[in-house]
Amino acid sequence: MTTTWVPGADASGFGADNLPYGVFSRGGAEPRVGVRVGDYVLDLAGALGDPEFFAASLNPFMARGSTTWRSVRAKLTGMLTSEEGRPAAEPHLVPLAEAELRMPFEVADYVDFYCSLEHASNVGRIFRPDEAPLKPNWKHLPVGYHGRSGTVVKSGTDIVRPTGQLKPRGAEEPLFGPSARLDIEAELGFVVGTPTPLGRSVPVGDFAEHVFGAVLVNDWSARDIQAWEYVPLGPFLGKSFATSVAPWVVPLEALGAARFAGRAQDPEPLPYLKRVADWGLDLAFEVELNGEVVSRPPYAAMYWTPDQMLAHLTCNGASLRTGDLYASGTVSGAERGQRGSLLELSWGGGEPLAFADGSTRTFLEDGDTVRISATAPGMGGGSISLGEVTGTVRSAGR
Amino acid sequence: MTTTWVPGADASGFGADNLPYGVFSRGGAEPRVGVRVGDYVLDLAGALGDPEFFAASLNPFMARGSTTWRSVRAKLTGMLTSEEGRPAAEPHLVPLAEAELRMPFEVADYVDFYCSLEHASNVGRIFRPDEAPLKPNWKHLPVGYHGRSGTVVKSGTDIVRPTGQLKPRGAEEPLFGPSARLDIEAELGFVVGTPTPLGRSVPVGDFAEHVFGAVLVNDWSARDIQAWEYVPLGPFLGKSFATSVAPWVVPLEALGAARFAGRAQDPEPLPYLKRVADWGLDLAFEVELNGEVVSRPPYAAMYWTPDQMLAHLTCNGASLRTGDLYASGTVSGAERGQRGSLLELSWGGGEPLAFADGSTRTFLEDGDTVRISATAPGMGGGSISLGEVTGTVRSAGR
Repeated sequence: MTTTWVPGADASGFGADNLPYGVFSRGGAEPRVGVRVGDYVLDLAGALGDPEFFAASLNPFMARGSTTWRSVRAKLTGMLTSEEGRPAAEPHLVPLAEAELRMPFEVADYVDFYCSLEHASNVGRIFRPDEAPLKPNWKHLPVGYHGRSGTVVKSGTDIVRPTGQLKPRGAEEPLFGPSARLDIEAELGFVVGTPTPLGRSVPVGDFAEHVFGAVLVNDWSARDIQAWEYVPLGPFLGKSFATSVAPWVVPLEALGAARFAGRAQDPEPLPYLKRVADWGLDLAFEVELNGEVVSRPPYAAMYWTPDQMLAHLTCNGASLRTGDLYASGTVSGAERGQRGSLLELSWGGGEPLAFADGSTRTFLEDGDTVRISATAPGMGGGSISLGEVTGTVRSAGR
Repeated sequence: MTTTWVPGADASGFGADNLPYGVFSRGGAEPRVGVRVGDYVLDLAGALGDPEFFAASLNPFMARGSTTWRSVRAKLTGMLTSEEGRPAAEPHLVPLAEAELRMPFEVADYVDFYCSLEHASNVGRIFRPDEAPLKPNWKHLPVGYHGRSGTVVKSGTDIVRPTGQLKPRGAEEPLFGPSARLDIEAELGFVVGTPTPLGRSVPVGDFAEHVFGAVLVNDWSARDIQAWEYVPLGPFLGKSFATSVAPWVVPLEALGAARFAGRAQDPEPLPYLKRVADWGLDLAFEVELNGEVVSRPPYAAMYWTPDQMLAHLTCNGASLRTGDLYASGTVSGAERGQRGSLLELSWGGGEPLAFADGSTRTFLEDGDTVRISATAPGMGGGSISLGEVTGTVRSAGR
C-alpha cells in the first residue's frame, strides 16, 4: 500500500491509492476540481497550477483523454506520497468540512442497464409471476434503456415523493396520487470521458480508453408508477423524478485490485461482447436505511461487465459524449441480505423488513434516509472507498 | 393573410405568418440565429442588433421565455410586413442558398411518446398478434420513454445502417449484423424553452409558457434490433443510432390556425391530463421515399395532445431544461396511405410497397432517401410549411 503524508488518510479509504475526483467550492467561491485524500480535498487548480481545474464539472478534464488522466494521477501520487512533493500540495489541502461538494460532472446521456442476474430474476418473479423470470434476450445482451439525464442529482439532494398515475391492485381504474411504493436501486455508474463520433462502435477492449471512472448511483424508483406505465416502452416516470450520484468519481486505475475475470457467462456472448480483459469488479456495497444496514450487495455477482455494457451501447454506431453516464442496474446477490432494492428485500411488499426500534418497512416512508456506500480492495492491501450516495425522502405535498 | 415585401415569400409557405427559427452560418463564419422568410434567412443578430443571436443554437433565446418570444416575433412581423420596417431588415436577408443550416437547438433530454391510436394499434397487431393491440394503460396516459439526445442530428445527415443483435424469425440463436428492417417514423417534436426546477409539475394550461415551438422529426428505427431487445425495458439500440430533426423550429404562435380541440378521448383522462385549451393540431404530413409520396399522415388524428404530453412528462416532478425535445411518436391515420412508418405501410414486411419504376420496398435499402414534410393552415388563409427532414441511408460497411 502506498502511504501518504496527509494526516489520517492512509486508513480512511481515501489514501494515495484511491484519489477520486470531485468538484467543490469553498466559502461561496467559484467551483474547482479536487481530489479527496483522507478528510481533505486537494485543490487541483492550486496544486497543479492548471487553470483547466477551475471548472464547475469534471467534463473538461475528462474530455482530455486517458493519457492525461494517467499523467495527472501519476503527478498527484508523487506529490502526496513523497516529502519532495509535499510543499507543492500541502497549501492546497482544503478540510472536507469547509468544502461544499457539487455535482461532480455534467451528465450528457444517462443509460441504465439491468446486469444483475439475481435482480432481473427477482423482478421478473415479482412483476410477472406467471412467466419465466428472465426474458429470452437477457443472457444474450446487457438489457438497458435511456433515463432522464436532467434529473440526475448530487448525493444529499432531498427526494420529493413523486406523484403519478398508478393502478393499485384490484382497482378498476387508475388514479393519480403519491407513490406508495417508493424504492431505491443500489448501482454502480460509469462515466465516459473520451467521446466518439457517430457511426463508431467501441470495441470491448477499448473500455478504459473511454471510461474515466466509476461513481455510486441510487436510481430511485416508484414501483407502482413503473408497474402501470412500463409496457410496452419501458420505465419512464417511475424513474425520471430523481437519480442520485455520489460526489466522487473513482478513476478506473484505482480499481486495479478489484478487477477479476468477471462472472462466468453461459451461453457464450456473441463476438462483439467477448471479454478481452478483466473487468469484473469485486466491490462490496452496503445499503443503510435510517442508519441500519439492510443489505450488502456484492458487485462481483454481476453478470455483465462494464466493458461489455459499453460495447453493446455503441454497437449500433451511437456516439459517446463526455459526461455520458451508464449505470449497472441494481446490484443484487443470491442471498436475501444481498438484494439492492426494497422491492426485492420485501419481496414485492409482502415480507416487511424489521428494524431494531421495532418498526418495519416495505417501501420508503417520508423522512427515511438512505445511504449507499461501497468499498474495493486497495492496491497492496487495505481498501478504498467509493464514498456514499445519500438522500432523504420528503413528502409529496411540499 | 399578412403579406411581406420579401420577394416570393407570401406563397412559399414561409411567409410572414410563419417565421420559423433556425441556426445558420455563411461562408464559414460563426453561426447565427435566423428566421426563414421565403428563400431567405433573416439574420437576427444583424436585423435586431441583439448580440444574443450570435449563437450556435436557439437555446439562449428559448431560455428567455414566452414574453421575449412574443415581443421578438412582433418586432420581426413589423419589419417584414411594412415599408417602414424594410430598411432595417433588408440588408440582413441572406439567400437560403448561401446559408449552411445547422442543428437548430442543443438537445437536453429527448423523450419519445406514442400518441397515435392507429400507430400503437398497428404496432401491437404486428409485434404481438396474439394479444389485444393496445396495452391497458394506453388510453389512460400518453405512453413515452427517453431516447438518446446525443444522437439527435440535423436534417440531411446520412444515416449509416446500424448493426446490432437481432434474432431473425425461426432462428435458434441471435446473431450480430446489419439491420434488415430499417424504418422511419414521421413525428412532430416539441422544443422546450422555459425550464422548471425539480419538483414542479407543469399544468396542462401552462404548455405555451414552456414550449417554444414545433419541429419535424424522423425517428429512424431498426425494427429487428428493437423487436429482440425491447422487453422488458423498452426500445434502446433499435432507436439510439440516429434521430433527425428539421432545421426550422416553428413557434407555437404560428400554429394558431392549425389549432382545434383535439381528438375526442374516451375514457375521460384524469384531472391532471384534462385539456383546458385547444392544442389539437391540424397538420398535413407527407412522407416521400426516393421522391415518391408513400404516405400522407394527418396529425389531427393524434389521440394525445402536446399539452397533455408535457403535463404527463412532469407530473412526477421531473424538471425541464431549455432544449428538451419531446416527440409525438409516429403519426398514423386510419387509412393505409396515412401510416407514418414502413413497418405499418408494409404490414410488418408482408405487403411490399410498389413504386413507379417497378421496384418494391418493405424496409429501407442502402441509398434510399427519405423526406418528411408538413404544412399547417396559415393565419387568414394560405398555408405554412414546417420545412422538411431528410436523410439518405448509407451501408453498414462504411
